[in-house]
Amino acid sequence: MNNLINLVNENLERFMDTAYPNELFESMRYTVLLPGKRLRPVMCLETCRMLGGNIEDAIPTACAIEMYHAMTLIHDDLPCMDNDDFRRGKPTNHKVFGEATAVLAGDALLTYAPQIITKHSKNLGSDKLLKLLEEYFQYAGAYGVIAGQVVDIESEKKYPKNAAETLNFIHTHKTADLFKLAIRSGAIIANATDKQIADLTDFAEKLGFAFQISDDILDEISTFEEMGKTLGKDKTAEKLTYTNLYGIENAKCKLTCLLDECYDRIQESVVFKEIIDAIKKRVGI
Amino acid sequence: MNNLINLVNENLERFMDTAYPNELFESMRYTVLLPGKRLRPVMCLETCRMLGGNIEDAIPTACAIEMYHAMTLIHDDLPCMDNDDFRRGKPTNHKVFGEATAVLAGDALLTYAPQIITKHSKNLGSDKLLKLLEEYFQYAGAYGVIAGQVVDIESEKKYPKNAAETLNFIHTHKTADLFKLAIRSGAIIANATDKQIADLTDFAEKLGFAFQISDDILDEISTFEEMGKTLGKDKTAEKLTYTNLYGIENAKCKLTCLLDECYDRIQESVVFKEIIDAIKKRVGI
Repeated sequence: MNNLINLVNENLERFMDTAYPNELFESMRYTVLLPGKRLRPVMCLETCRMLGGNIEDAIPTACAIEMYHAMTLIHDDLPCMDNDDFRRGKPTNHKVFGEATAVLAGDALLTYAPQIITKHSKNLGSDKLLKLLEEYFQYAGAYGVIAGQVVDIESEKKYPKNAAETLNFIHTHKTADLFKLAIRSGAIIANATDKQIADLTDFAEKLGFAFQISDDILDEISTFEEMGKTLGKDKTAEKLTYTNLYGIENAKCKLTCLLDECYDRIQESVVFKEIIDAIKKRVGI
Repeated sequence: MNNLINLVNENLERFMDTAYPNELFESMRYTVLLPGKRLRPVMCLETCRMLGGNIEDAIPTACAIEMYHAMTLIHDDLPCMDNDDFRRGKPTNHKVFGEATAVLAGDALLTYAPQIITKHSKNLGSDKLLKLLEEYFQYAGAYGVIAGQVVDIESEKKYPKNAAETLNFIHTHKTADLFKLAIRSGAIIANATDKQIADLTDFAEKLGFAFQISDDILDEISTFEEMGKTLGKDKTAEKLTYTNLYGIENAKCKLTCLLDECYDRIQESVVFKEIIDAIKKRVGI
């Protein structure tokens, strides 16, 4: 896994331009290059490898997905959203560059990410490139991550009646959709069959759910030093999270179940097993 | 021109989905469907027609460009940017839906717009579709409109030494780049030659400059009732505009020159002449 993380980091550094206006490109680079686990790009590369594809072919797409992820962090942390001052142990983007530039850096990354795919994956051919872009628009946009974000914010204002269903929608879109994008893109690059893609989508959904539940648990039990961001806010805000709705013990139980299922499904991949183990470890199960 | 405006409006209405979460899709629809001049999509359609293309083929791309334009309005009006309460005579997006939803609606439109192209222009073939998306990423992103926005905001904080050059950069990117995107896209759909595209890009640059100068003039001489937004703010903010830098008379003179050049270049198009006349009329030259 560390080899893949290094590969992602090297290429992110290479793909993030330093053009004029410096303020904009520095702001984009700042959040994209903050040290992170690179989970999503690693999943993309590993899926491609697992299915017999050439890992080099998946690098631009894997990096683009990390850039998109950075964009969601920048906008999530804004004062009008979660109003967070720290991310990955460093001041958030708007704390360093100001709110206006942070909004625009996020906007820029939303088109910069797919532009990286079109610029650096020409060898895949127009049809496959277009398929990758369609996946990006679907999972990263109004029908995907952004839909999850909006419902997440709404559920802070008032606890919905159909809380379980709503929580399901939030987790599916806010978190699992980006896992799906990463894994499906890797599969498409490796010329996976429809059946393989469908199976992997289901796997990605479960893993995404598990990851979000672990995040909900960590918000309650972890510390700023461990996570590099302010915690315990969800509890205070009475936000609709898995732990708030079902309690921490039920959350841990559900998480164990989901991760066991994921583990059984992905026996051929050492890297995915490492990811599953890492999620277990972070919440101590 | 009115026929083209109606065609754009009908199709915008059709393309703007009403899915769950309602709040998000209503917010996106709200600004996209505010009555407007539809200048950019009309330019796209008219360019396609002028070059012998089928206007129907350009409708999704033309509408996508208007959606992108709406996105820039939503984010520009945010409190951390221009902090405007009115747009096209109506309350701005964040005034109706709140800041968080406005940020997310803008984010959603950034990928929704090119998704409309991929969904509804399949008949153009993968190569041409990909070319249209590349144009979108280039002119709408970090190297285009967003770059112009960042420099525009920076120039408010401190007047730059190289003011003329900086103003040139702002106008080229903030305004002319979207005109270029519209006109170049229309040309690509109509299978224009490289020479034709280069000539039209130059024309679009001049027209974009002219339009931005007319906007700078209007900020000084027009009223809220005429424009549907708060005016005179640029003067107060000592913003880097054509009128602030060169004075209103020089601005009018430059505008007349640019529009005369545009007029000579586009004799074959009644619609572009109407656009040029409309710009002249709005500032009374």
